[in-house]
Amino acid sequence: MRERKISESTIHRLSHYYRALNTLEKEHFETISSKELAKREKLTPAQVRKDLSFFGSFGTRGLGYPVKELKGRIAKILGIDRTWNVALIGVGNIGSALVSYKEFQRQGFNIKVLFDSDQRKIGSNHKGITVLDTDHLEEELQKNKIELVVLAVPASAAQNIVDHVVHCGIKAILNFAPIKLKVPDDVEIRTENMAMELEYLSFTLVNNKKGERKKT
Amino acid sequence: MRERKISESTIHRLSHYYRALNTLEKEHFETISSKELAKREKLTPAQVRKDLSFFGSFGTRGLGYPVKELKGRIAKILGIDRTWNVALIGVGNIGSALVSYKEFQRQGFNIKVLFDSDQRKIGSNHKGITVLDTDHLEEELQKNKIELVVLAVPASAAQNIVDHVVHCGIKAILNFAPIKLKVPDDVEIRTENMAMELEYLSFTLVNNKKGERKKT
Repeated sequence: MRERKISESTIHRLSHYYRALNTLEKEHFETISSKELAKREKLTPAQVRKDLSFFGSFGTRGLGYPVKELKGRIAKILGIDRTWNVALIGVGNIGSALVSYKEFQRQGFNIKVLFDSDQRKIGSNHKGITVLDTDHLEEELQKNKIELVVLAVPASAAQNIVDHVVHCGIKAILNFAPIKLKVPDDVEIRTENMAMELEYLSFTLVNNKKGERKKT
Repeated sequence: MRERKISESTIHRLSHYYRALNTLEKEHFETISSKELAKREKLTPAQVRKDLSFFGSFGTRGLGYPVKELKGRIAKILGIDRTWNVALIGVGNIGSALVSYKEFQRQGFNIKVLFDSDQRKIGSNHKGITVLDTDHLEEELQKNKIELVVLAVPASAAQNIVDHVVHCGIKAILNFAPIKLKVPDDVEIRTENMAMELEYLSFTLVNNKKGERKKT
Protein backbone atom coordinates (compact mmCIF):
# COMPACT_ATOMS: atom_id res chain seq x y z
CA MET A 1 0.00 0.00 0.00
CA ARG A 2 1.29 3.42 -0.91
CA GLU A 3 1.71 5.95 1.85
CA ARG A 4 -0.49 8.86 1.05
CA LYS A 5 -3.28 10.87 2.57
CA ILE A 6 -6.72 9.34 2.56
CA SER A 7 -9.70 11.59 3.21
CA GLU A 8 -12.67 11.00 5.47
CA SER A 9 -14.94 10.80 2.43
CA THR A 10 -12.71 8.17 0.84
CA ILE A 11 -12.87 5.99 3.96
CA HIS A 12 -16.67 6.21 3.91
CA ARG A 13 -16.73 5.32 0.23
CA LEU A 14 -14.55 2.28 0.98
CA SER A 15 -17.24 1.14 3.45
CA HIS A 16 -19.80 1.53 0.68
CA TYR A 17 -17.63 -0.33 -1.86
CA TYR A 18 -17.16 -3.14 0.67
CA ARG A 19 -20.94 -3.57 0.97
CA ALA A 20 -21.42 -3.43 -2.80
CA LEU A 21 -18.70 -6.07 -3.31
CA ASN A 22 -20.27 -8.23 -0.64
CA THR A 23 -23.56 -8.14 -2.54
CA LEU A 24 -21.77 -8.81 -5.85
CA GLU A 25 -20.01 -11.81 -4.33
CA LYS A 26 -23.38 -13.21 -3.18
CA GLU A 27 -24.68 -12.65 -6.71
CA HIS A 28 -21.69 -14.74 -7.97
CA PHE A 29 -19.95 -11.92 -9.85
CA GLU A 30 -16.25 -12.63 -10.25
CA THR A 31 -15.19 -9.24 -11.59
CA ILE A 32 -16.61 -5.73 -11.67
CA SER A 33 -15.64 -2.74 -13.79
CA SER A 34 -15.11 0.70 -12.27
CA LYS A 35 -18.00 1.85 -14.46
CA GLU A 36 -20.40 -0.72 -13.02
CA LEU A 37 -19.29 -0.13 -9.43
CA ALA A 38 -19.64 3.63 -9.98
CA LYS A 39 -23.17 3.14 -11.30
CA ARG A 40 -24.18 1.11 -8.25
CA GLU A 41 -22.76 3.74 -5.91
CA LYS A 42 -23.94 6.75 -7.92
CA LEU A 43 -20.37 7.99 -8.34
CA THR A 44 -18.23 8.67 -11.40
CA PRO A 45 -15.98 5.86 -12.71
CA ALA A 46 -13.04 8.26 -12.29
CA GLN A 47 -13.83 8.63 -8.60
CA VAL A 48 -13.96 4.86 -8.13
CA ARG A 49 -10.66 4.37 -9.97
CA LYS A 50 -9.04 7.13 -7.92
CA ASP A 51 -10.25 5.63 -4.63
CA LEU A 52 -9.16 2.13 -5.56
CA SER A 53 -5.77 3.30 -6.82
CA PHE A 54 -5.07 3.65 -3.11
CA PHE A 55 -4.39 -0.07 -3.25
CA GLY A 56 -1.74 0.39 -5.91
CA SER A 57 -2.00 -1.10 -9.35
CA PHE A 58 -5.09 -3.25 -9.34
CA GLY A 59 -7.69 -4.57 -11.71
CA THR A 60 -7.24 -5.49 -15.36
CA ARG A 61 -8.24 -3.22 -18.21
CA GLY A 62 -11.30 -4.69 -19.89
CA LEU A 63 -11.86 -7.23 -17.13
CA GLY A 64 -12.26 -4.97 -14.15
CA TYR A 65 -11.52 -5.68 -10.51
CA PRO A 66 -11.66 -9.19 -9.04
CA VAL A 67 -14.62 -8.97 -6.63
CA LYS A 68 -13.44 -11.29 -3.88
CA GLU A 69 -9.87 -10.01 -3.80
CA LEU A 70 -10.91 -6.37 -3.80
CA LYS A 71 -13.39 -7.00 -1.00
CA GLY A 72 -10.62 -8.65 1.01
CA ARG A 73 -8.23 -5.78 0.44
CA ILE A 74 -10.82 -3.19 1.49
CA ALA A 75 -11.68 -5.24 4.59
CA LYS A 76 -8.00 -5.24 5.52
CA ILE A 77 -7.52 -1.50 5.07
CA LEU A 78 -10.72 -0.76 7.05
CA GLY A 79 -9.65 -3.18 9.76
CA ILE A 80 -12.75 -5.34 9.39
CA ASP A 81 -10.83 -8.50 8.43
CA ARG A 82 -10.64 -9.13 12.18
CA THR A 83 -12.88 -8.69 15.23
CA TRP A 84 -12.79 -5.85 17.74
CA ASN A 85 -13.69 -5.81 21.43
CA VAL A 86 -16.24 -3.06 21.94
CA ALA A 87 -17.72 -1.60 25.12
CA LEU A 88 -21.07 0.19 25.05
CA ILE A 89 -21.59 2.78 27.75
CA GLY A 90 -25.17 3.85 28.49
CA VAL A 91 -28.07 1.47 27.94
CA GLY A 92 -30.88 4.01 27.55
CA ASN A 93 -33.00 4.27 24.40
CA ILE A 94 -30.19 4.51 21.87
CA GLY A 95 -27.82 2.21 23.79
CA SER A 96 -30.39 -0.58 24.08
CA ALA A 97 -31.09 -0.36 20.37
CA LEU A 98 -27.37 -0.57 19.57
CA VAL A 99 -26.93 -3.78 21.60
CA SER A 100 -29.28 -5.43 19.10
CA TYR A 101 -27.85 -3.66 16.05
CA LYS A 102 -26.80 -6.55 13.82
CA GLU A 103 -24.50 -4.52 11.56
CA PHE A 104 -21.97 -4.13 14.38
CA GLN A 105 -21.61 -7.88 14.84
CA ARG A 106 -21.66 -8.49 11.08
CA GLN A 107 -18.69 -6.16 10.55
CA GLY A 108 -16.70 -7.69 13.42
CA PHE A 109 -17.53 -5.21 16.18
CA ASN A 110 -18.37 -7.40 19.16
CA ILE A 111 -20.01 -5.66 22.08
CA LYS A 112 -18.39 -7.43 25.02
CA VAL A 113 -19.38 -5.23 27.95
CA LEU A 114 -22.19 -2.83 28.81
CA PHE A 115 -22.13 -0.05 31.38
CA ASP A 116 -24.66 2.20 33.02
CA SER A 117 -24.71 4.36 36.14
CA ASP A 118 -28.40 3.73 36.86
CA GLN A 119 -28.69 1.29 39.80
CA ARG A 120 -31.90 -0.13 38.32
CA LYS A 121 -30.05 -1.10 35.15
CA ILE A 122 -26.82 -2.41 36.69
CA GLY A 123 -26.91 -6.22 36.80
CA SER A 124 -29.68 -6.45 34.20
CA ASN A 125 -29.12 -8.45 31.05
CA HIS A 126 -29.24 -7.29 27.41
CA LYS A 127 -28.80 -9.94 24.74
CA GLY A 128 -26.82 -12.07 27.17
CA ILE A 129 -24.54 -9.26 28.34
CA THR A 130 -24.75 -8.04 31.96
CA VAL A 131 -24.79 -4.29 32.56
CA LEU A 132 -21.85 -3.24 34.74
CA ASP A 133 -21.51 -0.19 36.97
CA THR A 134 -19.71 2.78 35.39
CA ASP A 135 -17.96 3.13 38.76
CA HIS A 136 -15.82 0.17 37.66
CA LEU A 137 -15.39 1.47 34.10
CA GLU A 138 -11.61 1.72 33.89
CA GLU A 139 -10.82 -1.66 35.46
CA GLU A 140 -13.46 -3.46 33.37
CA LEU A 141 -12.35 -1.85 30.09
CA GLN A 142 -8.85 -3.11 30.76
CA LYS A 143 -9.92 -6.52 32.04
CA ASN A 144 -12.01 -7.09 28.90
CA LYS A 145 -9.28 -5.82 26.55
CA ILE A 146 -11.65 -3.24 25.05
CA GLU A 147 -10.33 -1.46 21.94
CA LEU A 148 -13.32 0.63 20.86
CA VAL A 149 -15.93 2.42 22.96
CA VAL A 150 -19.46 3.36 21.95
CA LEU A 151 -20.84 6.15 24.11
CA ALA A 152 -24.62 6.46 24.43
CA VAL A 153 -24.93 8.45 27.65
CA PRO A 154 -26.77 11.78 28.16
CA ALA A 155 -24.89 14.88 26.97
CA SER A 156 -24.46 16.07 30.58
CA ALA A 157 -22.55 12.91 31.58
CA ALA A 158 -20.54 12.40 28.39
CA GLN A 159 -17.39 14.45 29.03
CA ASN A 160 -16.79 12.92 32.45
CA ILE A 161 -17.22 9.40 31.08
CA VAL A 162 -15.02 10.09 28.05
CA ASP A 163 -12.24 11.35 30.33
CA HIS A 164 -12.21 7.98 32.12
CA VAL A 165 -12.31 6.11 28.80
CA VAL A 166 -9.33 8.08 27.50
CA HIS A 167 -7.50 7.66 30.79
CA CYS A 168 -7.29 3.91 30.37
CA GLY A 169 -5.80 4.15 26.90
CA ILE A 170 -8.78 3.79 24.54
CA LYS A 171 -7.93 5.49 21.22
CA ALA A 172 -11.24 5.23 19.33
CA ILE A 173 -14.67 6.39 20.50
CA LEU A 174 -18.04 6.55 18.76
CA ASN A 175 -20.18 9.13 20.52
CA PHE A 176 -23.98 9.33 20.28
CA ALA A 177 -24.37 12.16 22.80
CA PRO A 178 -25.27 15.39 20.97
CA ILE A 179 -22.26 17.25 22.31
CA LYS A 180 -18.71 18.01 21.17
CA LEU A 181 -16.34 16.16 23.49
CA LYS A 182 -12.73 17.05 24.23
CA VAL A 183 -10.17 14.29 23.77
CA PRO A 184 -6.38 14.33 23.37
CA ASP A 185 -4.98 14.57 19.85
CA ASP A 186 -4.06 10.90 19.70
CA VAL A 187 -7.66 9.79 20.32
CA GLU A 188 -10.12 9.58 17.44
CA ILE A 189 -13.68 10.45 18.35
CA ARG A 190 -16.62 10.38 15.94
CA THR A 191 -19.94 11.90 16.89
CA GLU A 192 -23.00 10.35 15.33
CA ASN A 193 -25.87 12.80 15.16
CA MET A 194 -28.88 11.34 13.39
CA ALA A 195 -30.52 14.77 13.05
CA MET A 196 -27.72 15.85 10.72
CA GLU A 197 -28.86 13.42 8.05
CA LEU A 198 -32.36 14.88 8.35
CA GLU A 199 -30.81 18.33 7.92
CA TYR A 200 -29.17 17.12 4.74
CA LEU A 201 -32.61 16.03 3.55
CA SER A 202 -34.33 19.27 4.55
CA PHE A 203 -31.55 21.11 2.70
CA THR A 204 -32.39 19.19 -0.47
CA LEU A 205 -36.12 19.83 -0.02
CA VAL A 206 -35.65 23.56 0.54
CA ASN A 207 -33.07 24.07 -2.18
CA ASN A 208 -34.44 21.52 -4.60
CA LYS A 209 -30.93 21.00 -5.84
CA LYS A 210 -31.10 17.27 -6.41
CA GLY A 211 -28.97 16.10 -9.31
CA GLU A 212 -27.21 19.43 -9.36
CA ARG A 213 -25.06 18.81 -6.32
CA LYS A 214 -21.55 17.51 -6.50
CA LYS A 215 -21.15 14.10 -4.92
CA THR A 216 -18.05 13.95 -2.72
CA MET B 1 -27.39 33.44 -2.25
CA ARG B 2 -25.25 32.59 -5.21
CA GLU B 3 -26.26 29.67 -7.37
CA ARG B 4 -23.47 27.21 -7.28
CA LYS B 5 -22.83 23.61 -6.46
CA ILE B 6 -22.64 22.69 -2.81
CA SER B 7 -21.11 19.37 -1.86
CA GLU B 8 -22.37 16.78 0.58
CA SER B 9 -19.40 17.48 2.87
CA THR B 10 -20.18 21.20 2.86
CA ILE B 11 -23.77 20.56 3.92
CA HIS B 12 -22.55 18.43 6.81
CA ARG B 13 -20.08 21.11 7.82
CA LEU B 14 -22.92 23.66 7.80
CA SER B 15 -24.73 21.43 10.33
CA HIS B 16 -21.60 21.48 12.47
CA TYR B 17 -21.19 25.26 12.16
CA TYR B 18 -24.83 25.70 13.15
CA ARG B 19 -24.23 23.75 16.37
CA ALA B 20 -21.01 25.65 17.11
CA LEU B 21 -22.80 28.99 16.57
CA ASN B 22 -25.65 27.86 18.80
CA THR B 23 -23.16 27.16 21.59
CA LEU B 24 -21.37 30.49 20.96
CA GLU B 25 -24.69 32.32 21.17
CA LYS B 26 -25.41 30.69 24.53
CA GLU B 27 -21.93 31.76 25.65
CA HIS B 28 -22.89 35.33 24.65
CA PHE B 29 -20.38 35.70 21.83
CA GLU B 30 -21.48 38.34 19.34
CA THR B 31 -18.90 37.68 16.65
CA ILE B 32 -16.58 34.85 15.69
CA SER B 33 -13.56 34.82 13.40
CA SER B 34 -13.06 32.15 10.75
CA LYS B 35 -9.89 31.21 12.64
CA GLU B 36 -11.72 30.61 15.92
CA LEU B 37 -14.59 28.73 14.24
CA ALA B 38 -12.04 26.61 12.36
CA LYS B 39 -10.25 25.78 15.61
CA ARG B 40 -13.49 24.65 17.26
CA GLU B 41 -14.34 22.46 14.29
CA LYS B 42 -10.80 21.21 13.67
CA LEU B 43 -10.79 22.63 10.14
CA THR B 44 -8.61 25.18 8.38
CA PRO B 45 -9.71 28.85 8.42
CA ALA B 46 -9.57 28.76 4.60
CA GLN B 47 -12.10 25.90 4.58
CA VAL B 48 -14.45 27.82 6.87
CA ARG B 49 -14.19 30.97 4.77
CA LYS B 50 -14.80 28.97 1.60
CA ASP B 51 -17.88 27.28 3.06
CA LEU B 52 -19.35 30.52 4.37
CA SER B 53 -18.67 32.38 1.14
CA PHE B 54 -21.63 30.34 -0.09
CA PHE B 55 -23.71 33.03 1.62
CA GLY B 56 -22.06 35.74 -0.47
CA SER B 57 -20.07 38.55 1.06
CA PHE B 58 -20.38 38.16 4.79
CA GLY B 59 -18.47 38.98 7.95
CA THR B 60 -16.16 41.92 8.53
CA ARG B 61 -12.40 41.70 8.31
CA GLY B 62 -10.98 41.97 11.83
CA LEU B 63 -14.37 41.54 13.47
CA GLY B 64 -15.42 38.19 12.05
CA TYR B 65 -18.90 36.87 11.48
CA PRO B 66 -21.91 38.05 13.49
CA VAL B 67 -22.88 34.88 15.44
CA LYS B 68 -26.66 35.30 15.58
CA GLU B 69 -27.05 36.39 11.97
CA LEU B 70 -24.79 33.65 10.63
CA LYS B 71 -26.65 31.03 12.65
CA GLY B 72 -29.92 32.31 11.18
CA ARG B 73 -28.59 32.19 7.65
CA ILE B 74 -27.31 28.64 8.04
CA ALA B 75 -30.63 27.56 9.58
CA LYS B 76 -32.41 28.98 6.56
CA ILE B 77 -30.19 27.26 4.00
CA LEU B 78 -30.47 23.94 5.86
CA GLY B 79 -34.24 24.34 6.13
CA ILE B 80 -34.21 24.22 9.93
CA ASP B 81 -35.67 27.69 10.41
CA ARG B 82 -39.06 25.95 10.19
CA THR B 83 -40.61 22.68 11.34
CA TRP B 84 -41.12 19.52 9.30
CA ASN B 85 -43.77 16.82 9.54
CA VAL B 86 -41.99 13.50 9.89
CA ALA B 87 -43.31 9.94 9.82
CA LEU B 88 -41.37 7.12 11.43
CA ILE B 89 -41.97 3.68 9.98
CA GLY B 90 -40.96 0.70 12.11
CA VAL B 91 -40.99 0.91 15.90
CA GLY B 92 -38.53 -1.89 16.65
CA ASN B 93 -35.29 -1.33 18.56
CA ILE B 94 -33.93 1.55 16.48
CA GLY B 95 -37.36 3.06 15.73
CA SER B 96 -38.37 3.17 19.40
CA ALA B 97 -35.10 4.88 20.27
CA LEU B 98 -35.62 7.47 17.53
CA VAL B 99 -39.09 8.43 18.85
CA SER B 100 -37.31 9.64 22.00
CA TYR B 101 -34.34 11.15 20.16
CA LYS B 102 -34.41 14.78 21.30
CA GLU B 103 -32.17 16.13 18.53
CA PHE B 104 -34.93 15.58 15.95
CA GLN B 105 -37.41 17.74 17.85
CA ARG B 106 -34.73 20.31 18.68
CA GLN B 107 -33.91 20.83 15.00
CA GLY B 108 -37.56 21.09 13.98
CA PHE B 109 -38.20 17.52 12.86
CA ASN B 110 -41.50 16.60 14.47
CA ILE B 111 -42.43 12.96 14.40
CA LYS B 112 -46.17 13.16 13.82
CA VAL B 113 -47.04 9.56 12.95
CA LEU B 114 -45.66 6.11 13.68
CA PHE B 115 -46.23 2.95 11.67
CA ASP B 116 -45.61 -0.73 12.15
CA SER B 117 -46.92 -3.90 10.54
CA ASP B 118 -46.82 -5.94 13.77
CA GLN B 119 -50.37 -6.37 15.10
CA ARG B 120 -49.02 -6.38 18.67
CA LYS B 121 -47.55 -2.91 18.15
CA ILE B 122 -50.38 -1.29 16.18
CA GLY B 123 -52.49 0.89 18.48
CA SER B 124 -49.76 1.08 21.14
CA ASN B 125 -48.49 4.44 22.24
CA HIS B 126 -44.95 5.84 22.09
CA LYS B 127 -44.36 9.27 23.63
CA GLY B 128 -48.01 10.17 23.03
CA ILE B 129 -48.07 8.99 19.43
CA THR B 130 -50.22 6.01 18.44
CA VAL B 131 -48.68 3.37 16.17
CA LEU B 132 -50.69 3.01 12.95
CA ASP B 133 -50.92 0.04 10.60
CA THR B 134 -48.57 0.17 7.59
CA ASP B 135 -51.58 -1.10 5.58
CA HIS B 136 -52.88 2.48 5.78
CA LEU B 137 -49.47 4.03 5.07
CA GLU B 138 -50.25 6.04 1.94
CA GLU B 139 -53.52 7.57 3.13
CA GLU B 140 -52.08 8.46 6.55
CA LEU B 141 -48.92 10.04 5.09
CA GLN B 142 -51.12 12.28 2.98
CA LYS B 143 -53.66 13.01 5.71
CA ASN B 144 -50.88 14.07 8.08
CA LYS B 145 -49.08 16.16 5.43
CA ILE B 146 -45.85 14.22 5.96
CA GLU B 147 -42.78 15.72 4.24
CA LEU B 148 -39.98 13.48 5.51
CA VAL B 149 -39.94 9.78 6.26
CA VAL B 150 -37.64 7.91 8.63
CA LEU B 151 -37.47 4.23 7.82
CA ALA B 152 -36.49 1.82 10.60
CA VAL B 153 -37.90 -1.44 9.28
CA PRO B 154 -36.01 -4.72 8.71
CA ALA B 155 -33.95 -4.87 5.51
CA SER B 156 -36.30 -7.50 4.05
CA ALA B 157 -39.32 -5.18 4.28
CA ALA B 158 -37.62 -1.91 3.35
CA GLN B 159 -37.93 -1.84 -0.46
CA ASN B 160 -41.65 -2.62 -0.41
CA ILE B 161 -42.31 0.09 2.18
CA VAL B 162 -40.17 2.65 0.39
CA ASP B 163 -42.08 2.02 -2.86
CA HIS B 164 -45.31 3.01 -1.09
CA VAL B 165 -43.65 6.04 0.49
CA VAL B 166 -42.39 7.22 -2.89
CA HIS B 167 -45.76 6.50 -4.50
CA CYS B 168 -47.49 9.12 -2.38
CA GLY B 169 -45.01 11.83 -3.30
CA ILE B 170 -42.49 11.86 -0.44
CA LYS B 171 -39.17 13.25 -1.71
CA ALA B 172 -36.88 12.75 1.30
CA ILE B 173 -36.21 9.54 3.20
CA LEU B 174 -33.79 8.65 5.97
CA ASN B 175 -33.21 4.90 5.93
CA PHE B 176 -31.83 2.91 8.86
CA ALA B 177 -32.21 -0.49 7.20
CA PRO B 178 -28.78 -1.82 6.21
CA ILE B 179 -29.69 -2.13 2.55
CA LYS B 180 -29.39 -0.02 -0.59
CA LEU B 181 -32.89 0.99 -1.65
CA LYS B 182 -34.03 1.95 -5.14
CA VAL B 183 -35.86 5.25 -5.48
CA PRO B 184 -36.59 7.50 -8.47
CA ASP B 185 -34.06 10.22 -9.31
CA ASP B 186 -36.18 12.99 -7.84
CA VAL B 187 -36.23 11.34 -4.40
CA GLU B 188 -33.36 11.86 -1.98
CA ILE B 189 -32.61 8.89 0.23
CA ARG B 190 -29.90 8.79 2.90
CA THR B 191 -28.89 5.54 4.53
CA GLU B 192 -27.63 5.77 8.07
CA ASN B 193 -25.37 2.88 8.93
CA MET B 194 -23.90 3.17 12.39
CA ALA B 195 -21.33 0.43 11.70
CA MET B 196 -19.68 2.67 9.08
CA GLU B 197 -18.55 5.10 11.76
CA LEU B 198 -17.01 2.18 13.63
CA GLU B 199 -15.26 1.20 10.40
CA TYR B 200 -13.85 4.70 10.20
CA LEU B 201 -12.50 4.21 13.72
CA SER B 202 -11.08 0.76 13.04
CA PHE B 203 -9.41 2.24 9.96
CA THR B 204 -7.67 4.83 12.15
CA LEU B 205 -6.63 2.15 14.67
CA VAL B 206 -5.22 -0.14 12.00
CA ASN B 207 -3.50 2.54 9.97
CA ASN B 208 -2.56 4.77 12.86
CA LYS B 209 -2.81 7.71 10.53
CA LYS B 210 -4.34 10.19 12.93
CA GLY B 211 -3.32 13.77 12.27
CA GLU B 212 -1.95 12.76 8.91
CA ARG B 213 -5.27 12.44 7.18
CA LYS B 214 -6.82 15.20 5.18
CA LYS B 215 -10.06 16.51 6.73
CA THR B 216 -12.75 17.00 4.09
